[in-house]
Amino acid sequence: MQSKLEADKNDLMESNIDWAMVNGLMIHPIDKNSGVACPIHIPFALVPSPYPLESYQLAYELQPLANLLVDQVANDKTFMDSVFQEVAKVDDFTKRLYQVYLETLRQPHHQTIKLGIHRSDYLLHIAADGVPKLRQIEINTISAGLPSLSSLASRLHRFNLDSPLLPAKLQLEKFPNATLPMSESLSGVANGIGEAWKLYNRPNSIVVMLVQPNEFNIFDQRWIEYTLRNNYGVRLMRKTLTEMDAQSRLEGSENRLFVDNVEVAVVYYRAGYTPRDYPSEREWTARTTIEISNAIKCPNIAYHLAGSKKIQQILAFPGVLERFLFRKSDVEKFRSTFAGLYPLDDSEEGRLAYQMAISNPEKFVLKPQREGGGTVTTSLTINIERDML
Amino acid sequence: MQSKLEADKNDLMESNIDWAMVNGLMIHPIDKNSGVACPIHIPFALVPSPYPLESYQLAYELQPLANLLVDQVANDKTFMDSVFQEVAKVDDFTKRLYQVYLETLRQPHHQTIKLGIHRSDYLLHIAADGVPKLRQIEINTISAGLPSLSSLASRLHRFNLDSPLLPAKLQLEKFPNATLPMSESLSGVANGIGEAWKLYNRPNSIVVMLVQPNEFNIFDQRWIEYTLRNNYGVRLMRKTLTEMDAQSRLEGSENRLFVDNVEVAVVYYRAGYTPRDYPSEREWTARTTIEISNAIKCPNIAYHLAGSKKIQQILAFPGVLERFLFRKSDVEKFRSTFAGLYPLDDSEEGRLAYQMAISNPEKFVLKPQREGGGTVTTSLTINIERDML
Repeated sequence: MQSKLEADKNDLMESNIDWAMVNGLMIHPIDKNSGVACPIHIPFALVPSPYPLESYQLAYELQPLANLLVDQVANDKTFMDSVFQEVAKVDDFTKRLYQVYLETLRQPHHQTIKLGIHRSDYLLHIAADGVPKLRQIEINTISAGLPSLSSLASRLHRFNLDSPLLPAKLQLEKFPNATLPMSESLSGVANGIGEAWKLYNRPNSIVVMLVQPNEFNIFDQRWIEYTLRNNYGVRLMRKTLTEMDAQSRLEGSENRLFVDNVEVAVVYYRAGYTPRDYPSEREWTARTTIEISNAIKCPNIAYHLAGSKKIQQILAFPGVLERFLFRKSDVEKFRSTFAGLYPLDDSEEGRLAYQMAISNPEKFVLKPQREGGGTVTTSLTINIERDML
Repeated sequence: MQSKLEADKNDLMESNIDWAMVNGLMIHPIDKNSGVACPIHIPFALVPSPYPLESYQLAYELQPLANLLVDQVANDKTFMDSVFQEVAKVDDFTKRLYQVYLETLRQPHHQTIKLGIHRSDYLLHIAADGVPKLRQIEINTISAGLPSLSSLASRLHRFNLDSPLLPAKLQLEKFPNATLPMSESLSGVANGIGEAWKLYNRPNSIVVMLVQPNEFNIFDQRWIEYTLRNNYGVRLMRKTLTEMDAQSRLEGSENRLFVDNVEVAVVYYRAGYTPRDYPSEREWTARTTIEISNAIKCPNIAYHLAGSKKIQQILAFPGVLERFLFRKSDVEKFRSTFAGLYPLDDSEEGRLAYQMAISNPEKFVLKPQREGGGTVTTSLTINIERDML
């Protein structure tokens, strides 16, 4: 017979899975074999993990600086040119994005309102001295996903911490200094889009969410749509880049963007960050149309490019952060989170980095310029590459 | 190319299916062939159906009378005996329930607090004169399902009526006299259970929801559990009758009910209404233990029996309603909703009813005493039975 603890654990688990389902903490993958789309709960932990308050607060303080930094970089044409003229030589996808960026600058009219929804990813590094250190992995400036599901996960954790099924040793009151901040990322993102829509200031205009076909993470996106509808009464249309090519047009000297004859106030990108999203020239045409339009882009092409790994790497060079952040204390705070980031190009630094990676592959990961999950190459592959040399 | 109306309809449909999924408007059936349990949205209409306000208000007014009637009938031992001694002769299942009822009356202690969650089902009958008439089909006094999903359906309809995707001719403002009352049945049911728990007045006690194994309607039930937890901080345990037999016991002269060593304040039945729920004597033992216990039952065995079709049929006899409802206007209001209800026993009325059913099978349905979906036999089967004679 199972123990009470075991029984409670099973109850808690079953109850959690159902909670996840009735509250939409789900993804919607299509089974490749059967073709059946069956919504399933996302993987989640039953209770939150302890995290050093200082590191949490630091991450919180850094985000406005990160946002400022993206904006400053995106506005600095000289800097952008210097970076992307080099990247364009080796990375065709970034080259196309850079061309769109240059195209926008050639337009007589610009939409001057910019909307950024950025997510900084960190790892917590415990050094030899035992002091936890925040290490920034990347800033996502386009399609920063999971705001809805992370808000729900935080509600689920609150639900469990209040549960009589939770073993006593895990209950929050056992940790007198602990707090459980609730994630407000869903309303934050939806309200950000809603405020941009208000700034555009045309009551009948709508929001377009640019999506990939057969998106498995659709519930994360739907929550944003419904919250936006609920809080601002705004309609959101889901469109792929291919659909935008067929259904959108520009109007007037201001390049106002229309889809299905409805004016678009905001284009929120949940696609367009990977070469797979551009199977033909039509998608590039759509992207260019959107970028040169008067719609508020989240992000615009400059913000998108400013999130490149190459930018992040160059920002780590001595003296570069100082070009964009004016307070010495901000620079130091920001720099304290930098993990080592190295190029793999023909420069002297690139050759050195290559040697380091080949010699100690377990200490490195490879990452392409662009965004999107599943693009990290870990030591295993580096080892294979080395052995093939 | 599809028209804008077609495109909007598709958008609305897709958006609705996802809305149903992120908001838990779902059931969780297990596919009999594959064994896979895949949550799916329930079937729903995109917009609410028009309904005569007068009939709606009448149903609203009648419910407190129906509740009073159930209570009066359940308290009238002479009446109950006269009905169920007869039914017991032909219906083994009802006989067992009646025996449990008698057993409770033999106990020195009774729980005097009763909790009823009753749902009256109506059809709207449009007679030859064109005037819509409310026709009561049955009162469900046990396991009245779908309070959660119907609340969600009402929210979904509100969502659609506010949607710019809705064809103009369907929009609410096109119907100046129309209103869309929101269903509060989820919070109503959860708060009913919560108030019973408060009356029981033992802070560490819990609620047991009696469930069927592999319940496909689990999300309807989970919403009640989570709302109860949220509004009252009460734990709800899900148990089958078989589990109750193994895990429950009575304690003290008051017959306090314990499950897994936790005291039970309220037992909320979402099972136990069909012979299938009693595969062995163990489940009858569990049912008896619960009924003679001090826990507040929703419903208790007397309320359960008072919901029998036989009771409903007898209430339709001239003069019977007057025994239980004291105001003449209430009696008339109630009687105005009665559909014809006939016995199929050896009485003269039963033999007449049999002849009527055989002669005009398309005008009748057969219904067993007990609750639960899928138990109605329609004219097709009556025809087959006739042809087999």
